[in-house]
Amino acid sequence: MDGIVQIFPLRGIPRVQPGDRLVDHILHSLQGSGTTLEDSDVVVVTQKVVSKSEGRLVRVEDIRPSPRATRLAVKLNKDPRTVHMILKESRRVVRQGHGVLIVETRHGFICANAGIDQSNVEEGYLALLPEYPDLSARKLRKALEKATGKKLAVVITDTFGRPWRDGHVDVAIGCSGIAPLEDLVGTTDPYGHKLRVTQPALVDEIAAASELVMRKHSLTPACVVRGVAYRRGYRGVNTIVRERKLDLFR
Amino acid sequence: MDGIVQIFPLRGIPRVQPGDRLVDHILHSLQGSGTTLEDSDVVVVTQKVVSKSEGRLVRVEDIRPSPRATRLAVKLNKDPRTVHMILKESRRVVRQGHGVLIVETRHGFICANAGIDQSNVEEGYLALLPEYPDLSARKLRKALEKATGKKLAVVITDTFGRPWRDGHVDVAIGCSGIAPLEDLVGTTDPYGHKLRVTQPALVDEIAAASELVMRKHSLTPACVVRGVAYRRGYRGVNTIVRERKLDLFR
Repeated sequence: MDGIVQIFPLRGIPRVQPGDRLVDHILHSLQGSGTTLEDSDVVVVTQKVVSKSEGRLVRVEDIRPSPRATRLAVKLNKDPRTVHMILKESRRVVRQGHGVLIVETRHGFICANAGIDQSNVEEGYLALLPEYPDLSARKLRKALEKATGKKLAVVITDTFGRPWRDGHVDVAIGCSGIAPLEDLVGTTDPYGHKLRVTQPALVDEIAAASELVMRKHSLTPACVVRGVAYRRGYRGVNTIVRERKLDLFR
Repeated sequence: MDGIVQIFPLRGIPRVQPGDRLVDHILHSLQGSGTTLEDSDVVVVTQKVVSKSEGRLVRVEDIRPSPRATRLAVKLNKDPRTVHMILKESRRVVRQGHGVLIVETRHGFICANAGIDQSNVEEGYLALLPEYPDLSARKLRKALEKATGKKLAVVITDTFGRPWRDGHVDVAIGCSGIAPLEDLVGTTDPYGHKLRVTQPALVDEIAAASELVMRKHSLTPACVVRGVAYRRGYRGVNTIVRERKLDLFR
């Protein structure tokens, strides 16, 4: 059937250690499943394994919380050392309350706790977001393309909450080889109307779709999305972070 | 390969008219593609065809804008008749500026223009959101289940913008047969940590994934998502709209 999109989980990836080459884990998993990558495949990996492979881990007992972090931690009933790292990774606090600290990260992402958490991490450590997720995506794409000879895209995902709705969806925090937005502005719908504001955020749709096979409690930190018609591009996710002066909710 | 998710576009659905039975269009499209529905398939349809089939269309020239709508329209450089309908479909205005009117709809959704637009609609008409999208989803699910003898789920999607990031993603505005959130709170990750706040919003992830095959400029208002492990449930999308008192961004 024409136009099908398929999402393949990549199984059997071991616990990632600092210094691991993700490309090797991915290729090994593909081998184990008897699949190979095809041109235009999008390889999706979770932030957690990227952060681990890049050594973006902090030992909790080494953190000396600042007075500001300590005050805020008491107020929000959180660990002062975690709050210290959240503040350190952030430009500013956007909202606080209900035990939640929503910040603007150094990358410009608005999310809870600067994306820092302990899930799927060795006891006693915190995992921080990659320093430059678009660059992490680019490196992985280059390595995968070199190893396979295929033209590929890479999307790095993280799990963000959202305003107004309960629950989480995965979003893209880094990408390479795929234009983050599909720009339909100026094209016409089947009724002849000019589409004025339609820019599907393809990388975020791919990120959300990927969670359908990569659940938190399964050991599936990567998948392949096949069949998406996308435009090859080299601008990262950082280019779709809305400018503060155009943003009605910061 | 185990655990694959597949998304099949449903092609050949004609322009939907008020009073059309969507179930017939979907079954006809499936027939044309030589596919049949299987147990646990999620049938995804866009808001636009649901609204049209339910006659949720307003002729622009019949609208008499209120003074309030007219004032707001001048300020935002919009058509006063459109603004009138937006206000009529809303509980309140959440933000205005940059030519955008972000409201809380009568359903509790926070979105631009109360989800009202002209794309993919006959000239001179506006399409409103379905009155009770969860009920629309339920009716369609029941009709599809009756016709096929399969246990199915239905998700109705719309294209929403989001704060902080450019571009749009599709989200669920109605669902039936699938629990909107997968509740992992209290389960453990592979490292033994209790997952405290992890509730993937499955219906929104399915909605976002569906847009990978249903683009605005193609005539594909429906698709089938196969292979998602979900919990059957009868609570609608309305149950994941965050209560105002717990919401930091209203």
